[in-house]
Amino acid sequence: MPLTLDSLNPTVAKVEYAVRGELAIKAEEYREKLKEKNHGLPFNKVISSNIGNPQQKGLDQEPITFTRQVAALMEWPALAELAPNVFPKDVIVRAQELSREIGSIGAYSHSQGVPFIRKSVANFIADRDGYPSDPGHIFLTGGASAGVSLLISMLIQSPKSGILIPIPQYPLYTATLAQHDGAALPYHLDESSGWSTSVESIEAAIEKAQKDGVEARALVIINPGNPTGALLDEATQVKLIELCEKHSLVLLADEVYQDNLHHRQTHPFTSFKKVVAQTQSRVPLVSFHSISKGVSGECGRRGGYFECVNFSDEILAQIYKMVSVGLCPPVSGQIGVDSMVRPPKVGDESYALWKQETDAIHEALASRTKTMAARLNALPGVLCVDSPGALYLYPQITLSQKAQETARQAGKEPDAFYALALLDETGICVVPGSGFGQKEGEWHYRLTCLCPGVDEYVGKLETFHKGFVAKYGA
Amino acid sequence: MPLTLDSLNPTVAKVEYAVRGELAIKAEEYREKLKEKNHGLPFNKVISSNIGNPQQKGLDQEPITFTRQVAALMEWPALAELAPNVFPKDVIVRAQELSREIGSIGAYSHSQGVPFIRKSVANFIADRDGYPSDPGHIFLTGGASAGVSLLISMLIQSPKSGILIPIPQYPLYTATLAQHDGAALPYHLDESSGWSTSVESIEAAIEKAQKDGVEARALVIINPGNPTGALLDEATQVKLIELCEKHSLVLLADEVYQDNLHHRQTHPFTSFKKVVAQTQSRVPLVSFHSISKGVSGECGRRGGYFECVNFSDEILAQIYKMVSVGLCPPVSGQIGVDSMVRPPKVGDESYALWKQETDAIHEALASRTKTMAARLNALPGVLCVDSPGALYLYPQITLSQKAQETARQAGKEPDAFYALALLDETGICVVPGSGFGQKEGEWHYRLTCLCPGVDEYVGKLETFHKGFVAKYGA
Repeated sequence: MPLTLDSLNPTVAKVEYAVRGELAIKAEEYREKLKEKNHGLPFNKVISSNIGNPQQKGLDQEPITFTRQVAALMEWPALAELAPNVFPKDVIVRAQELSREIGSIGAYSHSQGVPFIRKSVANFIADRDGYPSDPGHIFLTGGASAGVSLLISMLIQSPKSGILIPIPQYPLYTATLAQHDGAALPYHLDESSGWSTSVESIEAAIEKAQKDGVEARALVIINPGNPTGALLDEATQVKLIELCEKHSLVLLADEVYQDNLHHRQTHPFTSFKKVVAQTQSRVPLVSFHSISKGVSGECGRRGGYFECVNFSDEILAQIYKMVSVGLCPPVSGQIGVDSMVRPPKVGDESYALWKQETDAIHEALASRTKTMAARLNALPGVLCVDSPGALYLYPQITLSQKAQETARQAGKEPDAFYALALLDETGICVVPGSGFGQKEGEWHYRLTCLCPGVDEYVGKLETFHKGFVAKYGA
Repeated sequence: MPLTLDSLNPTVAKVEYAVRGELAIKAEEYREKLKEKNHGLPFNKVISSNIGNPQQKGLDQEPITFTRQVAALMEWPALAELAPNVFPKDVIVRAQELSREIGSIGAYSHSQGVPFIRKSVANFIADRDGYPSDPGHIFLTGGASAGVSLLISMLIQSPKSGILIPIPQYPLYTATLAQHDGAALPYHLDESSGWSTSVESIEAAIEKAQKDGVEARALVIINPGNPTGALLDEATQVKLIELCEKHSLVLLADEVYQDNLHHRQTHPFTSFKKVVAQTQSRVPLVSFHSISKGVSGECGRRGGYFECVNFSDEILAQIYKMVSVGLCPPVSGQIGVDSMVRPPKVGDESYALWKQETDAIHEALASRTKTMAARLNALPGVLCVDSPGALYLYPQITLSQKAQETARQAGKEPDAFYALALLDETGICVVPGSGFGQKEGEWHYRLTCLCPGVDEYVGKLETFHKGFVAKYGA
């Protein structure tokens, strides 16, 4: 059969990933065009608010110096002798310790990740939760996505196997389910109560699936939420664990934003691992974490881990086998994980700078999020939950009948039409809500709160929105 | 349904990956045990000859200094000012150029890979082959495995879609086909003519598949071979391309060992890209390359690329979409690709050291391979093709009836039994031929030619083999 679209695996056509979809591709084209002298565009830079990529060009988040100093020494260990005064003492000690354990970072590691780094992760989890963690149950990964994709591929048995996913969701979940020919079983978060999660909406989704002959295998919870930024309270977490017990569900806890908290006092993060341990639940739990978010922001390294709780040895052996086919996660990402879970301590030479850098990142994000939510809420027809966590806002926009019709005539979803117009006029790239899921007849978009110069950034959003309303009506 | 082996995707159970299977796991256990004072083992170190991992502990292949210096500067660009005299000038220039193009290596890159690095790859291919290469048709990957796995997953439509794979093969192919529920269509290489590839054996496999109702979608060629090390001549390559045209097959060319050549004059490497261009063939070709092998040996970075030739824009768009779900390949691996395809040139400050290091790696590998093949061939019942490429030897061993029966009684394949006994006695870990495939009633194992101290290494193999023959007969 010749190589045509029709000859591909039919699941390929079903995969959609809006975060890097049509808008992101057009934004890249604009970025290239801006290099031309007479580009004729009504803006002078493209702002990629479509993706949580803190260190990208044009944003202001610098890498954590400690992380990069350790990494530089691992790349070229001779530096410790060639330029001894350039590195803080604790960095040199750390890099030497890692070198002893890992050897060259150019060698394949254990497929599950360097044993020593898995021990560091287990200590981090134990310190965070107050309950022990087993390094043998931890798998280092190339970012959280790789782990999520693997687990979903292993849990789906047929198109009649389903996985419960929140709406709105991070589209990795629907994309992976499409790829592995499983069923996405959507349950709705409640925007009116700050995107809260309710057991009832999940029960309803399970019931609907049963009627359709689909068995729910797992429940995905994103906490803090993406795109919503919402945080679960412990009481809800207990109920969700009970629900998983009742329906024999695996709990897939996407906890990659656990360190992006804008109001730690009123909205703290509690891991599902802690609640499972507290309640002595036997629910199989996978908790995903990543170095791409938090204050680390090391997306390009591709590092992360997942911890399996209440998994049998024989299932763990199958996971090991599957990851071994890919040989090992990037070692550069693995040492990034080590730096994230073992930052400098009080008394270490690197501590003061580390504290200053990470405090600044937390503060900037919290302050931008607050400002942006307030100013978006002040716009006509815009409703924006002031997110207590993660890196995003997910405002709801009212789109007039005229705007909706014009969109449909152009063959676009109304929110995609709005987002395209925003990109064309301002160079700001966001992701339409249709990429994450929303209720019928509602429209949203997701934007990151990473952009510096929040005044200019939100100013452009405001001007555009007012112009759009003037053109199409409220 | 509770989480048990039976509740997993049924494809999981079918996946096998011998390179990191039972033997490798046991080797790791021995390595841990050796740390004990009274370990009671008859050896003092484990030699991991099961995997082509040049920079692993205990082997002597150092990383290329140029690659690591560039990488260290990318990790912490301030080093160029803090320790200016430590780095050669061309390294600083290179790192600054990459930094301008990439920005922070902690940011997600373009999902297809940094455009600038794809241009470097295209230039490398054009220089190698004398035919142009389009950076838009190149995808940077996390090692070659990631690309192979993606392409296979996209080409398989149902269990009735098959992919032609050589026997012996690198087990990534059978593992990936099992995972995606496609059919492996084996064709045999001819050991008696140095593991040559014949069109007839592939035609026979296609015919057999047709009888079974399976459609062949693609042909995998590993050149230089793994585990065989064999090299194709251009005349055979032309015939293979014609065969792909005749049967509308996609040609998947695994060319990751293209720079591991032990006799460049008599056994040169010719890329399939060059032959396709020369013959103006319209066959869809994917050529895979990697930084894990060659003189680079940077397995842990997870870097590589594939080039698509004769692929339509719509298919390329689908590949882009699929890789975008995983966000981007590790940037550390991408800059490793850049260093591999743009090494220092004559006149650059780094050139002399680079030349010295890479010459030493080539020479050591060629000399070890020759010595090992000669000494293995001198053993009773051992037949070993003197491999002109790649990193391995794949000796055939005669196993007596008694050895075979003892193995079966222990529930092992006879070659796995031999390899386990070798590990138990000597600490040398190899991979039994059953992991790669072999003719019924034949037995082989694969071992790497990476170990330093070849006298001690082969000496142990010889002593073991003679003892095994003494115990079980020839």
